[in-house]
Amino acid sequence: MNKAILLIQCPDQKGIVAEVSRFLYSYQGNILEIDQHVDKGLSLFFMRAAWELDSFSLEKEKIAQQFEKEVGAKFKMDFKLHFNFPKPKMAIFVSKLSHCLFDILARHHSGQLEVDIPLVISNHKDLQSVVEAFNIPFHHIPVTKENKSASEAKQLELMQEHQVDFVVLARYMQILSGDFINHFPNRIINIHHSFLPAFVGAKPYHAAYERGVKIIGATAHYVTEELDAGPIIEQEVARVRHHNTIPDLVQIGQDVEKVVLSKAIQYHLDRKVLAFRNKTVIFY
Amino acid sequence: MNKAILLIQCPDQKGIVAEVSRFLYSYQGNILEIDQHVDKGLSLFFMRAAWELDSFSLEKEKIAQQFEKEVGAKFKMDFKLHFNFPKPKMAIFVSKLSHCLFDILARHHSGQLEVDIPLVISNHKDLQSVVEAFNIPFHHIPVTKENKSASEAKQLELMQEHQVDFVVLARYMQILSGDFINHFPNRIINIHHSFLPAFVGAKPYHAAYERGVKIIGATAHYVTEELDAGPIIEQEVARVRHHNTIPDLVQIGQDVEKVVLSKAIQYHLDRKVLAFRNKTVIFY
Amino acid sequence: MNKAILLIQCPDQKGIVAEVSRFLYSYQGNILEIDQHVDKGLSLFFMRAAWELDSFSLEKEKIAQQFEKEVGAKFKMDFKLHFNFPKPKMAIFVSKLSHCLFDILARHHSGQLEVDIPLVISNHKDLQSVVEAFNIPFHHIPVTKENKSASEAKQLELMQEHQVDFVVLARYMQILSGDFINHFPNRIINIHHSFLPAFVGAKPYHAAYERGVKIIGATAHYVTEELDAGPIIEQEVARVRHHNTIPDLVQIGQDVEKVVLSKAIQYHLDRKVLAFRNKTVIFY
Amino acid sequence: MNKAILLIQCPDQKGIVAEVSRFLYSYQGNILEIDQHVDKGLSLFFMRAAWELDSFSLEKEKIAQQFEKEVGAKFKMDFKLHFNFPKPKMAIFVSKLSHCLFDILARHHSGQLEVDIPLVISNHKDLQSVVEAFNIPFHHIPVTKENKSASEAKQLELMQEHQVDFVVLARYMQILSGDFINHFPNRIINIHHSFLPAFVGAKPYHAAYERGVKIIGATAHYVTEELDAGPIIEQEVARVRHHNTIPDLVQIGQDVEKVVLSKAIQYHLDRKVLAFRNKTVIFY
Repeated sequence: MNKAILLIQCPDQKGIVAEVSRFLYSYQGNILEIDQHVDKGLSLFFMRAAWELDSFSLEKEKIAQQFEKEVGAKFKMDFKLHFNFPKPKMAIFVSKLSHCLFDILARHHSGQLEVDIPLVISNHKDLQSVVEAFNIPFHHIPVTKENKSASEAKQLELMQEHQVDFVVLARYMQILSGDFINHFPNRIINIHHSFLPAFVGAKPYHAAYERGVKIIGATAHYVTEELDAGPIIEQEVARVRHHNTIPDLVQIGQDVEKVVLSKAIQYHLDRKVLAFRNKTVIFY
Repeated sequence: MNKAILLIQCPDQKGIVAEVSRFLYSYQGNILEIDQHVDKGLSLFFMRAAWELDSFSLEKEKIAQQFEKEVGAKFKMDFKLHFNFPKPKMAIFVSKLSHCLFDILARHHSGQLEVDIPLVISNHKDLQSVVEAFNIPFHHIPVTKENKSASEAKQLELMQEHQVDFVVLARYMQILSGDFINHFPNRIINIHHSFLPAFVGAKPYHAAYERGVKIIGATAHYVTEELDAGPIIEQEVARVRHHNTIPDLVQIGQDVEKVVLSKAIQYHLDRKVLAFRNKTVIFY
Repeated sequence: MNKAILLIQCPDQKGIVAEVSRFLYSYQGNILEIDQHVDKGLSLFFMRAAWELDSFSLEKEKIAQQFEKEVGAKFKMDFKLHFNFPKPKMAIFVSKLSHCLFDILARHHSGQLEVDIPLVISNHKDLQSVVEAFNIPFHHIPVTKENKSASEAKQLELMQEHQVDFVVLARYMQILSGDFINHFPNRIINIHHSFLPAFVGAKPYHAAYERGVKIIGATAHYVTEELDAGPIIEQEVARVRHHNTIPDLVQIGQDVEKVVLSKAIQYHLDRKVLAFRNKTVIFY
Repeated sequence: MNKAILLIQCPDQKGIVAEVSRFLYSYQGNILEIDQHVDKGLSLFFMRAAWELDSFSLEKEKIAQQFEKEVGAKFKMDFKLHFNFPKPKMAIFVSKLSHCLFDILARHHSGQLEVDIPLVISNHKDLQSVVEAFNIPFHHIPVTKENKSASEAKQLELMQEHQVDFVVLARYMQILSGDFINHFPNRIINIHHSFLPAFVGAKPYHAAYERGVKIIGATAHYVTEELDAGPIIEQEVARVRHHNTIPDLVQIGQDVEKVVLSKAIQYHLDRKVLAFRNKTVIFY
């Protein structure tokens, strides 16, 4: 089914839902999902509306302009209009660990993820054969302290060439520069292998082991310039016990990481995520 | 804050959200929460809207009639209008087990549950002192095969005398008659000590032990004439292991039961539950 | 590290732990893990002991015989001795759904699963290319009502040819005959896509949707002749809501299925599972 | 059933299990539970053994001495011998919040917690009537900056007078002095209202809200001089969403807190916890 999805942020005031739903109804829009949220502390209004496009009497190309004229301007809305076609293009960055990559490729292969994956980029060659077995182009771009900015330039070039909409860091062990991040605001999804904000930084499983926690976790978030501090999209946890070694924690954690990352990708693809400050509203 | 809450069920068609939100806006309603759901298979539309009453320009007493006239009739709506005041009246039925009762009384005592509890009814005297320590009247109504219908008559009389809105069976070990149930359609909440539909009927923990399951659970549901088959409001589970005995299962399960029942009561009180057939829509 | 693992079942009596640990110590065994469980109701004793083999002063080939002589006979033990080498051989049976298969192959590829996979058998060709991309032989054996016993004969022949230790049914949609099952007692692991014993039989996600449950699940169990009634190895659940459609339930459930099946395989490989009647003792 | 429980820590070496189980068997001990754990990194051995006392041929009073002579000295064991009678004495410290206190009192009232509660101490009077309704003495000891050490002196005096074995801080909002803590090493259980080590210190629900986490938690730990850094006994979590306010988080969190604290108390009572450094081994 062809769908349109509208994501709205604006100052809170009365009548917004009435106006948005009137707009959709006036063009024979069949609403599929409608959700709203008010952040009372910040007086911010958030809304997501999805409707069938085929029976909508306004041309796809004119919707955004007409909505701004009839509704958006009046409420000072910051809105984005999405369609579920053509499929968005997602780039995957990996290093050597395969569990998240495999999980994404398997979902893509089975048709569960409605996304195009034009390329996978890695700073190592370890996963090349896996990626190519799925008929996805693999680009090996080594990253060292010395060549980092040249490597990012290459990466950005590939992003542009393939018109990539968003980037998934599937346990990509490099820190991206602020410049790279600014090309994809709230469009780079990272999986961090701890239950943030616990154990920020490197080697969280080691830190969790040292601290003797009884539960570990993983966190998918949008990447911002501040490390591990971007808006959290999804988190999940798993129970561990005293007899679990660090390698056990890594293995238990990997099962959590791949599920969390795939959920975050799904929410992002379904346009269910509205990010503001260091937070997200997620209408699932 | 004084709130009005509207719960709507009707055949699905275009324009419902637009009309409801226009109605609320036309009387200066400040929407607090608005949620909708469409059951595509049954072509049924469900909606919940909550708004501030103080600034609403229509008198409390006229809202239902005006809404029916302007909106309800047009869409053939089955709707209910609730206010968060005065507090609803909840009766609790218990037998001998105290864990669910205590949990409810503790929440009530701390002000978490916005409900009046005019009475507790039990077929045993065991919990009388506990209930009275919380300054709640306790009625001992023994139930035997012989006196069952006389006992229910007494219970119903007390329900009417205290203008009880809904009933909570906090591990009340008696089966209510169809007649009693029909006085409170979708207004009797029961906690069943298994993860329904597994282990319906008596002694579910024994059955779970015999089957060797690795997870047990509890289910809060509205009581209907068919035993353990009413609309499920909430479920939760807990992990068990081979070394757990039946008494262990009972104890682990009791922690699940009390949390599930309290959640169900909270959803019911917040008017977040719409029941239809043997199912619920819950806008939490 | 080379390990020996002893799994014991016997009538309960005093002194068993003392005798087993004395036996191991007398040959300089360094115990890695030791666990015991008593089923009081059945007066059955269960034990698992794992120790380092390299420093053990009894030859690998003589351990079983010597243990029987010194300890086993005295306590009427039913015991099995395993080593963690050579790797056991696991056959995978699939139909068309890929999520469990992919998950297993990904774990195998990353070295997480210490097992050999000599072959994958399917009654359909859909997953052939996937399997072969992982360099694992794929056998297409169609199954119809008419050729069922001939097909099983072929399957059994392949099992013998490849000296398969145990079989994993990774959403294999066929029911195996009692004859086939008897070749692999407690050595066929099936994943059932419901939280058993709820929703036995076909189409459990449809049944869960109809019943309006708030939690769905998956169950890994050893296959016995009685359908979906074998000893449960592992279960896990996931929360669902009123807006989730049957396809949503299928997708949410698949994430549970693959995690549960992989855990069950891991427990089986680690020789942590003792099955008796329709139950399991799992020393994790 | 009268039980003896032995908790052992010592440097790891071969033969410990054999020697301990031989000792128990030599006096006709019927082992109920036996668990061991080796921390490979620290070369530390941990063990817990529970056995029936009635049929044990060594007098209760002589067990510790005889064990030290036959086994403990040889392996340089740090061991503790416990019996499940008489019931241990537990003091509860609270401030104004009632949820954890109620949960403990309800479990005690129903007979689930095999412990004596000789007194509850609070720096406020709010919960006095509740406590006294359960027939437990309540002591109001106000705490200010000025009188803190005098107050602790009074508290310690009461601890001694009532021969208190261990202390539970059921949301007691005061920080205990090092001196007080040293009177009860690994015998003061605190519930911290966050998923440690995330959000240490005050107002963790506010901090969790600000950070936009999707999961909150609670942590029961032994109190040490370093704030919120003692050995973790148990943790649990609950999911939250963008629409949850800080009061919602508090309420959701309270349900987690009381379950976690009660589990920790139960583990402690069952002598299943071995603490070392900032960690615990828990044989549940």
